[in-house]
Amino acid sequence: MMPKAAPRQADQSVNGLFRLLGTEPKSLSRARPIYRRIVALLGDGITRGAVPAGHQLPPERDLAAALAISRATVVSAYRELEARGLVRGYVGRGTFVSATPDTASAPFAWRGKIAASALQANETTVRDLVRAASDPRLISVAAGVPALECFPTDAFQRAMTRVLATQADAAWRHGPTEGLQPFRVALADRFGGEPEHILVLAGAQQGLDLLARCLIDPGDAVIIDRPGYLGAIQTFRNAGARLVGWDIVGADTDELEELLLRYRPKLIYTNPTHQNPTGVTMPIRTRRELLELAARYRVPIVEDDTYRDLALTGAPPPPSLFALDEAHTVVIRINSFSKMLAPGLRLGWISAVRPIVEQLALIKQQVDPHTQNLSQMVIAELIAQGVLDKHLATLKSEHRRRRDAMVQALRQRVPAAQLRFGVPDGGMYLWCELPAGIRARAVQDCAVRESLMVLTGDPFYVDQGGDHQLRICYTSQPAARASQIAETLARSLSAAACQGGAPPVRVRMV
Amino acid sequence: MMPKAAPRQADQSVNGLFRLLGTEPKSLSRARPIYRRIVALLGDGITRGAVPAGHQLPPERDLAAALAISRATVVSAYRELEARGLVRGYVGRGTFVSATPDTASAPFAWRGKIAASALQANETTVRDLVRAASDPRLISVAAGVPALECFPTDAFQRAMTRVLATQADAAWRHGPTEGLQPFRVALADRFGGEPEHILVLAGAQQGLDLLARCLIDPGDAVIIDRPGYLGAIQTFRNAGARLVGWDIVGADTDELEELLLRYRPKLIYTNPTHQNPTGVTMPIRTRRELLELAARYRVPIVEDDTYRDLALTGAPPPPSLFALDEAHTVVIRINSFSKMLAPGLRLGWISAVRPIVEQLALIKQQVDPHTQNLSQMVIAELIAQGVLDKHLATLKSEHRRRRDAMVQALRQRVPAAQLRFGVPDGGMYLWCELPAGIRARAVQDCAVRESLMVLTGDPFYVDQGGDHQLRICYTSQPAARASQIAETLARSLSAAACQGGAPPVRVRMV
Repeated sequence: MMPKAAPRQADQSVNGLFRLLGTEPKSLSRARPIYRRIVALLGDGITRGAVPAGHQLPPERDLAAALAISRATVVSAYRELEARGLVRGYVGRGTFVSATPDTASAPFAWRGKIAASALQANETTVRDLVRAASDPRLISVAAGVPALECFPTDAFQRAMTRVLATQADAAWRHGPTEGLQPFRVALADRFGGEPEHILVLAGAQQGLDLLARCLIDPGDAVIIDRPGYLGAIQTFRNAGARLVGWDIVGADTDELEELLLRYRPKLIYTNPTHQNPTGVTMPIRTRRELLELAARYRVPIVEDDTYRDLALTGAPPPPSLFALDEAHTVVIRINSFSKMLAPGLRLGWISAVRPIVEQLALIKQQVDPHTQNLSQMVIAELIAQGVLDKHLATLKSEHRRRRDAMVQALRQRVPAAQLRFGVPDGGMYLWCELPAGIRARAVQDCAVRESLMVLTGDPFYVDQGGDHQLRICYTSQPAARASQIAETLARSLSAAACQGGAPPVRVRMV
Repeated sequence: MMPKAAPRQADQSVNGLFRLLGTEPKSLSRARPIYRRIVALLGDGITRGAVPAGHQLPPERDLAAALAISRATVVSAYRELEARGLVRGYVGRGTFVSATPDTASAPFAWRGKIAASALQANETTVRDLVRAASDPRLISVAAGVPALECFPTDAFQRAMTRVLATQADAAWRHGPTEGLQPFRVALADRFGGEPEHILVLAGAQQGLDLLARCLIDPGDAVIIDRPGYLGAIQTFRNAGARLVGWDIVGADTDELEELLLRYRPKLIYTNPTHQNPTGVTMPIRTRRELLELAARYRVPIVEDDTYRDLALTGAPPPPSLFALDEAHTVVIRINSFSKMLAPGLRLGWISAVRPIVEQLALIKQQVDPHTQNLSQMVIAELIAQGVLDKHLATLKSEHRRRRDAMVQALRQRVPAAQLRFGVPDGGMYLWCELPAGIRARAVQDCAVRESLMVLTGDPFYVDQGGDHQLRICYTSQPAARASQIAETLARSLSAAACQGGAPPVRVRMV
């Protein structure tokens, strides 16, 4: 849970912090190793009370700039302090000194026991997003959540009752790692492919993790949409991949071929339909060129197809890469019910050629021997009865209503110069450009003080980028709330505009 | 699904295979690299039909012995052939040439794309166990499954109805990575610890995987029960750990101290209560000595506590290591509802000190952003209403009935010299010793031909061992089936006795 009313001190600057510490940034940056010195200095300052509980530490970027070190070093130092219970980070709010330091974890310095690869897993975006989305005190347009008010709870419950009345034994015993056969058949019927091409997952993120484990050796290059899905970026990065961005809005296949030649990637990850975060859909011609390139350079494509059924217009999007790749030899498709039904269900699947499904199943058995049976059985019923398709029609009109309300509210309440966005014809997001004078993090920071969670653009970039972009999920909040959200955002944009486009404090040390 | 009636050829020996191939083992073993040569030779033989569909390849151990190479090399070669669709392996049956070679996965040689670490993940035991347990045509006493007939389906359904009527929105939206707070509170109340010590999991296996990722760097030593839980062995081995067995039946803490000094392990994994597979429970005095050693040598203990509530006598087992370690600084406890309720639920949790819970949550967010909400909410209700405890009482008496029936049937139908076992006072397994003249794999092989799945001892050993041991799960089948199971087992033991204690064919090459 995020602290609501921690009093914000006036001065969260680097200089303010060092005043409290009674020393200068200079003294620190000369010492080596710098990471340990930061942890020791701040840890000591917090423990002896010089930096008081509730004090907000400088943004990681600011401290990194001030010390002329990499942001990753500061991130690691803050994570270390967090692991020691001295501070706590909140997405979009910053890092605060904990009120009750919890340092009594003797006799172990647990931190020293953590594996090297796990220490690199210090990106907290997904955890913070799901935490904020599950916090009823916040209005979140940050996480990608469909209109849950449309969920067919009654039909779900009836299907559950039927399943438990007739097949309880199959629900309670172990299921096959690949997924229950009737569910695989239902998925193949409704979404294409053959049942044996399907591996059932506890959500799409599990699929990304299995694919990273299956295909990525440290140092392998991966081409990924720029901007692209943050969960994929995080997973492939933590697997040790070198990430290379392909501009997904331009979707220029000549540029892609250059990247293929230059980086010899292990795979291409793309979300070509109602893309997250931009909302763009790749035209059929680009799809065919992409497939041809992938086949020619023998690079598999991981296609994230989770937004396909969330078109807002009557015209269906072009066929998936998986469908166009008729022999299914180039494309591995990831899908999920998180956007079609509900993220809380944790149910997804991968479609791929049989050797890949088998290899992924061998990895999955170690991670999660099989996905819960009951949800597979119930959703198979909902597909068979046509409940899913009826629900998707309802969802589509509700999403259209929410999109229109949000677009209208933003246009009415926010100066056009402060927030530019296209109107998407599917998916769940408005991808918004801010002017050079407004930093997305400053907007996020101002908005969260009014209990509104928005997402900055930077986690969607494999490299620098996103400092002046926001992603707004227009589907997660009722249309009636659009005005309130737009007003809060307008105030946040104005406040952020006063802070300017550059970080508020820069103590560059040469 | 396992093929039921594939005609077994008379000659599955190494010599028989090489006769079909028209060459000699000698010719192969001189060539290098041996792994590729085996794949090429067999692949070619299968493709041109010299080794016909349905032919059973020699057991991996036999071929390894014949070629004087490691079993792992043969396992890799067979897996490669399987990945190419040329053969298919079935636990307890062996590896068979596929009827319909599926080699048309061009343009990719997918195998060449698999990460080095994933190629090592060629152990199929867990996948095969859950597959067999979900196959209604088999009588399986192999996987660990409680008496599912006792599952409180009606109460589950009523709780589900209540949850959906009152909190559907919380069920469908994202939940926190650490788990829903009311569920963590319910777990802490019933099973000890504090809510913030708890990380909710999609089953205990996910916990093992997260712990391996969190704590194990390749080359780290891990001390593990000998014999010990096969899922833990597989997970830690695939994480690159060097596994060191500690005799769990003797549970000699002097021996453990020797191991701690000699191997400087990263952690100790143990299942001290109604242990899987032996059924032994560590006495309180050994527990205290173990904790003292772990604290002195600063080695964390991962305690698998999944069988605690499956005692068959009135006397409760000694407190868990987690409970005895009052500050929770040494012990990380893994728990699950798979044995208490049903494996199909996929619900478990880890209890540990807060920095470890936080680090594990950071890893979990990448793998599976959170565990399904609905099952957390329903099980929290069942705990609060006392349904779980009432169910555990019912389960205990049914398990006692099943144990007694199985013990009696085996004593009546199997010669005592062929199957020695102790009568456990908890847990779910009979751990059976075979005489030197009977190999466990031969028994398994004979039994599966009569549709009975038993589990050999070898996957429970981190080193050589288990060739003359069987694990029988006495809880998974109704008491009325005990005689039939015992009779099948008696026939399988007799048949295996005729084959003798050594592998049937050994062409040792010097």
